[in-house]
Amino acid sequence: MTRPAVVLFSGGLDSSTCLAIAREEGFAPHALAVRYGQRHAYELRAAERVAAALGAPLKVVDLDLRAIGGSALTGELAVPKDSPSGQGIPVTYVPARNTVLLALALGYAEVLGAQDLYIGVNAIDYSGYPDCRPAFVRAFEALANLATAAAVEGRARYTVRAPLLQLSKAEIIRRGAALGVPYGLTHSCYDPDPEGRACGRCDSCRLRRQGFREAGVPDPTPYA
Amino acid sequence: MTRPAVVLFSGGLDSSTCLAIAREEGFAPHALAVRYGQRHAYELRAAERVAAALGAPLKVVDLDLRAIGGSALTGELAVPKDSPSGQGIPVTYVPARNTVLLALALGYAEVLGAQDLYIGVNAIDYSGYPDCRPAFVRAFEALANLATAAAVEGRARYTVRAPLLQLSKAEIIRRGAALGVPYGLTHSCYDPDPEGRACGRCDSCRLRRQGFREAGVPDPTPYA
Repeated sequence: MTRPAVVLFSGGLDSSTCLAIAREEGFAPHALAVRYGQRHAYELRAAERVAAALGAPLKVVDLDLRAIGGSALTGELAVPKDSPSGQGIPVTYVPARNTVLLALALGYAEVLGAQDLYIGVNAIDYSGYPDCRPAFVRAFEALANLATAAAVEGRARYTVRAPLLQLSKAEIIRRGAALGVPYGLTHSCYDPDPEGRACGRCDSCRLRRQGFREAGVPDPTPYA
Repeated sequence: MTRPAVVLFSGGLDSSTCLAIAREEGFAPHALAVRYGQRHAYELRAAERVAAALGAPLKVVDLDLRAIGGSALTGELAVPKDSPSGQGIPVTYVPARNTVLLALALGYAEVLGAQDLYIGVNAIDYSGYPDCRPAFVRAFEALANLATAAAVEGRARYTVRAPLLQLSKAEIIRRGAALGVPYGLTHSCYDPDPEGRACGRCDSCRLRRQGFREAGVPDPTPYA
């Protein structure tokens, strides 16, 4: 039987690539999407389409982070446009986001009997988001092996896998294109138009466009 | 100015005592309740009453853990009655619960500018719940100091405080009674009746009753 793995999944470029990599690495990937009070439902619809295209079951957990506040992604602050990226911590940083997401993935893994958690953090995020660094990933893995009944009873030894960690956006795209990731279905924009088309100007769109350009892969994103 | 602290808070006996201790230790406690798909709203109403009585602001975050499943507390399994407690991991264990709760507390702390997180885990829970052990608390603290913008930028050094960790239920109750915790308002039962009265027979009720008895403090709990 193929071993299950939990893949944190948003329907974006990185997590979709991560899902394809988990499958290629021999796991039966279970996608876990967390609806954390984003302003747009597009992301979730993209997640449903991409998971279906990659043949992975998708579980959606609702978490209303708006009560906590503190981020442009949960509607508290304006999304910046045309700003130079990689300068300090972006306003789109969600407080303790990856800690929360990995905690939920760990709970789901324990229920599924999975021992492997995939998260699509990468070197680009590294520059601005503290919870995308290798030290963070290792610290969460250590925590996971103390936190669960499965680990304490010796039934599980958790591994947090971050296969995009050292890849540039262009390398991620080349890897995913080789694995057949349907990038035309994936969604990255922080601030899409009412039809769900990418703005092309937010940090996420800028990194994505540049990635396709550098990868030499045609960009299938529908821009506004 | 009094330093803020985030207190994970359910309106139960332990977290209510924890809130009173945080205040006594010189913090301005901010209570954080997570509504994680419990079957009963009583717990949240108790949290509102107790927080108001102790003069702490209360923030409520909704998280629907039912999607993940795997626990009697989220409606997946039956709550056991009259079972000997402390034998293995109870079915009321919620997968990765304290990891998820502390992650949310960390996010809230970062938004508030707080550096101290209180969690009311204790020695009784220790026997059955892996995420109530000292090693877990220390591992989360290590993670917190790698996970957040505030820590990485040197603006914060997080401490996870678990003041009930080494206390018996009776010691917790004596401590809380001395601090004026309104135990008549707190709620512990896993399976209350339609009027919200405690069943008196689930693991949580049994520990609570025994605690009052051993503490020599009158038990103000309304039992069914």
